[in-house]
Amino acid sequence: MSAGATLRAMREQRPLVHQITNYVVMNETANATLALGALPVMAHAHEEVEEMAGIASSLVLNIGTLSEPWVESMLLAGEAASARRIPVVLDPVGAGATAYRTATAHRIIERVNVTVLRGNAGEIATLAGAHAEVRGVESMSAGLALDELARAAARQLGVIASVTGPVDHVSDGERTLAVSNGHPLLATVTGTGCMSSALTGCFLAAKPAEPLEAAAEALAAFGVAAEDAADGAEGPGTFHARLYDALYALDPNTLDGRVRITET
Amino acid sequence: MSAGATLRAMREQRPLVHQITNYVVMNETANATLALGALPVMAHAHEEVEEMAGIASSLVLNIGTLSEPWVESMLLAGEAASARRIPVVLDPVGAGATAYRTATAHRIIERVNVTVLRGNAGEIATLAGAHAEVRGVESMSAGLALDELARAAARQLGVIASVTGPVDHVSDGERTLAVSNGHPLLATVTGTGCMSSALTGCFLAAKPAEPLEAAAEALAAFGVAAEDAADGAEGPGTFHARLYDALYALDPNTLDGRVRITET
Amino acid sequence: MSAGATLRAMREQRPLVHQITNYVVMNETANATLALGALPVMAHAHEEVEEMAGIASSLVLNIGTLSEPWVESMLLAGEAASARRIPVVLDPVGAGATAYRTATAHRIIERVNVTVLRGNAGEIATLAGAHAEVRGVESMSAGLALDELARAAARQLGVIASVTGPVDHVSDGERTLAVSNGHPLLATVTGTGCMSSALTGCFLAAKPAEPLEAAAEALAAFGVAAEDAADGAEGPGTFHARLYDALYALDPNTLDGRVRITET
Repeated sequence: MSAGATLRAMREQRPLVHQITNYVVMNETANATLALGALPVMAHAHEEVEEMAGIASSLVLNIGTLSEPWVESMLLAGEAASARRIPVVLDPVGAGATAYRTATAHRIIERVNVTVLRGNAGEIATLAGAHAEVRGVESMSAGLALDELARAAARQLGVIASVTGPVDHVSDGERTLAVSNGHPLLATVTGTGCMSSALTGCFLAAKPAEPLEAAAEALAAFGVAAEDAADGAEGPGTFHARLYDALYALDPNTLDGRVRITET
Repeated sequence: MSAGATLRAMREQRPLVHQITNYVVMNETANATLALGALPVMAHAHEEVEEMAGIASSLVLNIGTLSEPWVESMLLAGEAASARRIPVVLDPVGAGATAYRTATAHRIIERVNVTVLRGNAGEIATLAGAHAEVRGVESMSAGLALDELARAAARQLGVIASVTGPVDHVSDGERTLAVSNGHPLLATVTGTGCMSSALTGCFLAAKPAEPLEAAAEALAAFGVAAEDAADGAEGPGTFHARLYDALYALDPNTLDGRVRITET
Repeated sequence: MSAGATLRAMREQRPLVHQITNYVVMNETANATLALGALPVMAHAHEEVEEMAGIASSLVLNIGTLSEPWVESMLLAGEAASARRIPVVLDPVGAGATAYRTATAHRIIERVNVTVLRGNAGEIATLAGAHAEVRGVESMSAGLALDELARAAARQLGVIASVTGPVDHVSDGERTLAVSNGHPLLATVTGTGCMSSALTGCFLAAKPAEPLEAAAEALAAFGVAAEDAADGAEGPGTFHARLYDALYALDPNTLDGRVRITET
């Protein structure tokens, strides 16, 4: 496992990462994708989602501001991506907060071959059937230890579960990786979870054969960038601007020395 | 009246502030809400707006990029919020610029128990039936002195009218408060009016029993943050980033000493 | 031709620039418009687009995240703008990437009197019927030299073609202007192409009788601002924030000395 090598490969390939995401973070996930070195494209029209997913290297679905036409777009694109066997990331924003969000996340997981399910503890616990408290789009608590939760969700849902928080846990149901890069300022900016899903899509595009590693490396790289961005930031706003600087400046040659991934 | 005490209470409660707002400013109002210390959630699907409004502590409606499905979402969420007696803020962006915006704002005021109507002078004057000039979403002129306008609009429409500008005026029809915090750079960034509506929702959530005071305190706190953000800013872009830093750094212990609210 | 004079006139008039654009960049193009000195308004409801276009000084259409209801809004607003003979800018984001985007751009060009078609080489080449490679919303290659492409597209489509890249080329089919202001960091921030379309709308509003010059001047002014923003930026994020500072600080008195426009 080498986050540096994956980042280098990704920047050489410049994969197209098709994102159907929420209105709140579209600019942010596009900029994070671009700063990291991949090519974002946002497209949701029923007339074109399958064609766009057909030329992309990975697909990121995010239900943060869902409505039926957008869910239908996600299903169409997701099925096209599944048919082409390209990686699909699902970010179940707010699952557990309303019945509609929980049901929609399940609906997507059933119809689309989701590679990585990236969410906070409350969202993932809800989908795995564990007890959880979700308030709006924030996780308040989950009923399990986080490594247990990731493992259980992966097995239950047939995905790689990527549970982010102060320490992230990524599991395919067999192996579980803990990622301890990051910075508390990430929690003060809206959409940083969504960005981590987008960057997971970028890393998966570069290393589709090892999705567990790719998912953990993406979170580690994002965490390292957050650590760099925090250095010199005066609060959430300047941290946010500096986060793109830091993603852009990530160095494949030094990244591995800073990554903190351990098998649990 | 103590903006510091309200801010402190709000940060302890971390109220969920449900926002159905325009595409232009969603990220910005979410980040302002989060930086201040509350939890934003954006949700507009007809399938979930009532449920989301049902767990929120306040609701913010903003017609900046309206269309019929979104107006319907606002009415559904607004009626659910009214039934639960949680505070509702309406930001009538562009009322007076097109007939559709003016009519929609009236439609919401008629069907929803709007606590605070927060807009610029042209928008509020239009809705109060006074002469006004609105150009796109900018107020060009209003036919009344601003304290008179706030008072008249409050009486006419049965709301607390919060008229923002170089000096803000907030009135419940009886008492009128003038808020003279703020900075000219606020007018150079799109969505700062929308942010002030979102922050009004945050303060109302923390002090629902005194909405006139809460609305004025929210504008004062936002104005103080703007004053701090302007210090060191090199223009609209760096000011914008620093505005979130400043909201995050607002100190409940020193805020009251900086707030400039007077009864007119 | 004087970009400084056009900028000065624009800031005196504060034209209303009606924009129907994509979800990713709405905040960014509104802020760029405002920082430059014009008034942005985003409105897409079928109930109001014609009325809004009826009070605007120019209209900017952008298909970056299109869907049928939005295309219909663009056609309605575009026809209203054409009837009033105000300038219309079309940004055919992603034309060539999917059939739907290519067809939609053609549909708008056929029904609306498009003044300036502003895109990257791949998009413009696609619409002019030349060979091109478009990957998502990025131009990979075009089959012609760029000045030739601009000239050919202008003649073929009956528009002023504004082809942006490291050097921009703007042509009305007879004369072709090359603009060599700008900075490589522009390519690291999403939506800078969309911003250049919005600013083209601002300059056209101030100089509708000389659209070729106005289109070139807009790109030059944007490029000068990018040069200023890059000075002191640490990467894409701080560059992005500083770009609004730089647009706001553009000085009509010194702009002409920095503009690099040549006739090719």
